[in-house]
Amino acid sequence: MNALNITNRYFLHVEYDGALFHGFQRQQNIRSTVQEKLENALFSLTQEILTVTCAGRTDTGVHAINQVIHADLNSDWENDRLRMGLNFYLKDTGISVLNVYPCTLHVRFDAKERFYEYHILNRPTFSPLLKHRVWHIPKTLDIELMQEASQVFIGKHNFNAFRSSACEAKNPVRNLNTACVSKDGDIIKLNFSSPAFLHNQIRIMVGTIVQIGLRKIPLNTISHALQTGRRQDAGITAPPDGLYFLKVLY
Amino acid sequence: MNALNITNRYFLHVEYDGALFHGFQRQQNIRSTVQEKLENALFSLTQEILTVTCAGRTDTGVHAINQVIHADLNSDWENDRLRMGLNFYLKDTGISVLNVYPCTLHVRFDAKERFYEYHILNRPTFSPLLKHRVWHIPKTLDIELMQEASQVFIGKHNFNAFRSSACEAKNPVRNLNTACVSKDGDIIKLNFSSPAFLHNQIRIMVGTIVQIGLRKIPLNTISHALQTGRRQDAGITAPPDGLYFLKVLY
Repeated sequence: MNALNITNRYFLHVEYDGALFHGFQRQQNIRSTVQEKLENALFSLTQEILTVTCAGRTDTGVHAINQVIHADLNSDWENDRLRMGLNFYLKDTGISVLNVYPCTLHVRFDAKERFYEYHILNRPTFSPLLKHRVWHIPKTLDIELMQEASQVFIGKHNFNAFRSSACEAKNPVRNLNTACVSKDGDIIKLNFSSPAFLHNQIRIMVGTIVQIGLRKIPLNTISHALQTGRRQDAGITAPPDGLYFLKVLY
Repeated sequence: MNALNITNRYFLHVEYDGALFHGFQRQQNIRSTVQEKLENALFSLTQEILTVTCAGRTDTGVHAINQVIHADLNSDWENDRLRMGLNFYLKDTGISVLNVYPCTLHVRFDAKERFYEYHILNRPTFSPLLKHRVWHIPKTLDIELMQEASQVFIGKHNFNAFRSSACEAKNPVRNLNTACVSKDGDIIKLNFSSPAFLHNQIRIMVGTIVQIGLRKIPLNTISHALQTGRRQDAGITAPPDGLYFLKVLY
């Protein structure tokens, strides 16, 4: 690595099918992670042993439409040659490099806003064409109630009730800028944006909004859980299948 | 089967992921066809050995959003119980029964109009999230030229140049009611409807339209091939991945 000279830092925009990976982050004894596949492809292409950093770690099953990664290379690359070379080595892995360019920012620390989208299929029957792409909910959801519920999350709150027990963040206060619910045929989309999220925050927010939309729990569950900060006062954790890392603003 | 009494004929609307099957039609020595899975599920549920019939046979890799099938049962079923029972046995096969109801029509002979949609991903890089769902074309397509090309197919023509050598239809004249091209972000959709199609007709029409959109062949290729009726005068056959059986009108 080239600690003093970051002129060879490249930003890579990548899409991946989260169903094929044990999440983004490289782990001991677990082979199939996005990070491992990307670092292997970089090694195959450049012969450099590199550690890549991503804008937002995704869990097992969570997809990325436009994740951003940086890699500090010792060599110079023409953008398209780097992109196409990596895609050659990433063929059939479930990862695709969409765009490559040199950038001196830090992909995680300089991120100003992160955007996620969650997809629900709301119809009686399962869709084989959307397997691993949506959370299938057979019973009819009340969209207006879900929209109302999502609004309660907007703003600066202590999201302690809306994070997994494995979350390592010291400060559970986050500032949610966007939370909205829309419908396109049988698909319900939930959009969220924030400078940063806690571990599982979006999946617990979605699980809670869905339980409200099914009238299993009351609307005031959210404000109550935001006040108490107790995980058991919030709703369930939505499955990873419907969650997409959408984009980052710098 | 109950040849004299068709009061127990059921229409089944099904969705399937064509990438998982060797097409719709049951074949000797080939296990994974949609027909075989459906007939097996019907047998598991009803203990009746049945042969199902579909509105439009699909080839290996071709998907169905709303295929229609009929089955002549000797027993009476409540619609939702039949649907849910079949979906129980079809779990994880890549087929889902969307809707079930009794109907005395013939699913193929009484079909008035068949609708298909073709999806192209037009951007430089492959999409892992759309694997087996689109035809990926990296070079920019001229949408307006494709729209113009699609219009030439509309109406009654001898489509002999636009069918596979394996097509068994005696009469190659078909009446195309709809052919249009639209764009939604990176996705280009081509829609077609006709009372009936020849084997591979849509895939050869799409392949020809795409070659025109890439300016590899001129626009008048279509009218010329419709006149000569020679397969070699038309364009290539598009891959099955992007083709969806959309619906049938009765």
